[in-house]
Amino acid sequence: MQDSEEIKRGFHVVVNTERVRLPNGVLIELDIVRHPGASAVVPFLSDDRVLLIRQYRHAAGGTILEVPAGKLDDGETPEICAARELEEEAGVRAGRLEALGWIFSTPGFTDERIHLFAAYDLERVSMHPEDDELIEPVEMSLERALALVWNGELTDAKSAMALIHAAHRLGRLS
Amino acid sequence: MQDSEEIKRGFHVVVNTERVRLPNGVLIELDIVRHPGASAVVPFLSDDRVLLIRQYRHAAGGTILEVPAGKLDDGETPEICAARELEEEAGVRAGRLEALGWIFSTPGFTDERIHLFAAYDLERVSMHPEDDELIEPVEMSLERALALVWNGELTDAKSAMALIHAAHRLGRLS
Repeated sequence: MQDSEEIKRGFHVVVNTERVRLPNGVLIELDIVRHPGASAVVPFLSDDRVLLIRQYRHAAGGTILEVPAGKLDDGETPEICAARELEEEAGVRAGRLEALGWIFSTPGFTDERIHLFAAYDLERVSMHPEDDELIEPVEMSLERALALVWNGELTDAKSAMALIHAAHRLGRLS
Repeated sequence: MQDSEEIKRGFHVVVNTERVRLPNGVLIELDIVRHPGASAVVPFLSDDRVLLIRQYRHAAGGTILEVPAGKLDDGETPEICAARELEEEAGVRAGRLEALGWIFSTPGFTDERIHLFAAYDLERVSMHPEDDELIEPVEMSLERALALVWNGELTDAKSAMALIHAAHRLGRLS
């Protein structure tokens, strides 16, 4: 029966309306999306090859290219989260994770910090995305991934920043 | 009297709870922050010098370095918005705006697209930030701004992406 069909609960946004006294004394009421933080990770299959994912995003109105990423679970460190998302979304286990810093995704209305990583020495394991995650792995050269950033085909900010930071560390950015 | 003190209304978040049929048939309920879009712009004072702003952000818990940016007003194009924010937040008028593409800020929970620009041939005008915007202009070399991205002191994703795209176009990224 259509009416009793199971509805999964996806990303749930927590918005706080907060009253803030600014340093100049002005009193302001702001809506803030309070977020636990996230990790995003570039899996390196070799020195030159990376594993991206093509994922359905309702907010984007279709599929977009990203790196494996997700929200921190309760009590999870950014490293543990990155390792878990690598296995769930890309089907790889990292021998080594390199921390690349973190970004504020959009600090005008959320405190979300996304921790960026590169993953090396990968071992294939079985993928196990959630059933609300529609994910297709896409392998390409690092050079090609950067070209997609420059030409506007890879538009996800965290994925672009993770790729660019990783390429910078490797001396491969230009 | 404290109780009658005027409270300004700052950023107001519009969250829709949307029922979505995924391409695999799964029915899901998602919260989406619906956003009108934004523009972010790197003002170039010369070939090598940029004008950043240090701004108080409640969600960040203090001040952070950014480029001038803001939400699209009703009916505004990204170019008009960028030109307006340049004047309001940085006190400069652009002779020429170069479009650098756009990014999804965080497509897991918002449809916000931030359009990126570089501004050249600047003329000084008076700054007129809103009284809930606490902004200090900060001039530095492009090289220094990029160094702050690499060392993690400039953490705002849109500002980093705008600087990196602009430097890439100028052949100044490495």
